[in-house]
Amino acid sequence: MPELRKDPVLGRWVIISVERGKRPTDFTPMVQKKRGGFCPFCPGNEYTTPPEIMTYGRPEGAEPNSPGWELRVMPNKFPALGSEGELNKRGEGLFDKMNGVGAHEVIVETPDHNLSLATVSSEAFERTLHAYYERIQALKEDPKVKYVLIFKNEGESAGASLEHSHTQLIALPIVPRTVKDEMAGARKHYEMRERCLFCDIVHQEMEDRRRVVAENNDYIAIAPFAPRAPFETWILPKSHQSSFAPLNGGFSGLAELFQKVLRQVDAILEKPAYNFMLHTSPFNGDHNEYYHWHIELMPKLTKIAGFEWGSGFYINPTPPEEAARFLREANI
Amino acid sequence: MPELRKDPVLGRWVIISVERGKRPTDFTPMVQKKRGGFCPFCPGNEYTTPPEIMTYGRPEGAEPNSPGWELRVMPNKFPALGSEGELNKRGEGLFDKMNGVGAHEVIVETPDHNLSLATVSSEAFERTLHAYYERIQALKEDPKVKYVLIFKNEGESAGASLEHSHTQLIALPIVPRTVKDEMAGARKHYEMRERCLFCDIVHQEMEDRRRVVAENNDYIAIAPFAPRAPFETWILPKSHQSSFAPLNGGFSGLAELFQKVLRQVDAILEKPAYNFMLHTSPFNGDHNEYYHWHIELMPKLTKIAGFEWGSGFYINPTPPEEAARFLREANI
Repeated sequence: MPELRKDPVLGRWVIISVERGKRPTDFTPMVQKKRGGFCPFCPGNEYTTPPEIMTYGRPEGAEPNSPGWELRVMPNKFPALGSEGELNKRGEGLFDKMNGVGAHEVIVETPDHNLSLATVSSEAFERTLHAYYERIQALKEDPKVKYVLIFKNEGESAGASLEHSHTQLIALPIVPRTVKDEMAGARKHYEMRERCLFCDIVHQEMEDRRRVVAENNDYIAIAPFAPRAPFETWILPKSHQSSFAPLNGGFSGLAELFQKVLRQVDAILEKPAYNFMLHTSPFNGDHNEYYHWHIELMPKLTKIAGFEWGSGFYINPTPPEEAARFLREANI
Repeated sequence: MPELRKDPVLGRWVIISVERGKRPTDFTPMVQKKRGGFCPFCPGNEYTTPPEIMTYGRPEGAEPNSPGWELRVMPNKFPALGSEGELNKRGEGLFDKMNGVGAHEVIVETPDHNLSLATVSSEAFERTLHAYYERIQALKEDPKVKYVLIFKNEGESAGASLEHSHTQLIALPIVPRTVKDEMAGARKHYEMRERCLFCDIVHQEMEDRRRVVAENNDYIAIAPFAPRAPFETWILPKSHQSSFAPLNGGFSGLAELFQKVLRQVDAILEKPAYNFMLHTSPFNGDHNEYYHWHIELMPKLTKIAGFEWGSGFYINPTPPEEAARFLREANI
């Protein structure tokens, strides 16, 4: 009998079709072809991208937009949102619109074309998390920006148009619908129990163990109870922290756990395409007692079809308890 | 400058990136390979599917599950939900779950393996709509069923696992999140204005004309103001009708307009993969003054990536005014 499960944050139901019960080897791997050709993110080609916003690791005194960097951030060449101008909110009869003002940046995590976040050095992974944090802090200064969404598309079938490993950042003049819904769910729980819903989930999962993928002192990776997709994994700080920030002065603990999870996923699913998204509190009220920042990682193994579009529900052929077990037992 | 537009029903924002402004020929066609091989939906192979639920067109007195039908409905061989048993709602600490009880059916619209809904006869199209209606009415009798979602995945990249044209139906013990959200948006508008939001949209679009794709006496096809995807098209009855039902005794008007739209899409986008979903009022209160049934058609031209997963917003490179113009001018 399939099972219907409700995500406690969003109230979103998923169908866990236990009978179809897919194991990792049942998925057709979305082959990551090496596409070759010219790469605008490789050292030496800096002149082909818009001028950089910041870099880490380039020797002091060196020219901007020259090689020698370890991490490089620049505007997206084909930005989804523009960085200049006013919002100019306006109506058109029943409809509302505004100018697409915000920012769209690219964070190139390594100069090495052949590495991925799973294979970079631990220092490079830490640097990457620090760059996320630094860019969020910088964009927070702009009163037009209400939210910064950090996300990664790895592999063509997950939406990456370039194969050199990179993360994207979109700064928005409105809080995304998903974050708003998560905030509402978390606030409701807080009003009833005076506790953070995510803290409660972390505690329950730590007791239960079945859905724990990996953990260290400060962070935990779990397969959520009602995952949208097979092998979906969330990473959260174990203690309450409403906004993404370093812990004990750094990101080493998070880098260690996050990279371990990416290696587990690569080992079990043969380097699948994937997306991950960082969810943190909106700038307006980013220190609060009810929201809890986290990373949502979704290997790209299934297709979004009519049922998902029409219902907002998901059909997931792999129970999260099994997904977590496979990942825990990965040979990394 | 890109534009942010808000869907008036769901409050969902989309980014219309006018600068990228994609024309139909800019999309990589998702090639519909003929996959060949054994087809369980072809006449003569009825014994390979679960026993049929109903058929149209088979001569009286003929054996069930034999050839001679014009349209055939059967349970999905790999159902997402089971049809037997009790819901048995229960908790697991913070989490809620229930048995996956409902129904998952397949509607084979034509015995001809080589036809699609764009190319079947007008009679076959009408029959198909009638079958949707008849199955919804039948499933409404089951008190466990709260909603019936009708949807179609056409083409492999839109999630179809078999190429013989068919529609799917999933009967759910809960109202889908998307329909619930649409109902809430529509109810809010009704409380404020005492008018149906969809009726207001239809009237505004009929005045405006820029987003009208096609229309006839009773139905209209529009590119919605804030579409999730390029060439997304909605079909609605022009007059208020909260639940999907025949008009003036039949479905001929809807069949004519719907098929015209599918032919326009096939002509402009070279027979793309697509999904469509039928949204009608939930059974509990299916005659109401604020909701308005409609069909949402989404050609599969873009990928869902980290931004969409993380935000619930969409980036659409084709303004709906341009999409509607291309479709209107299609040579069909």
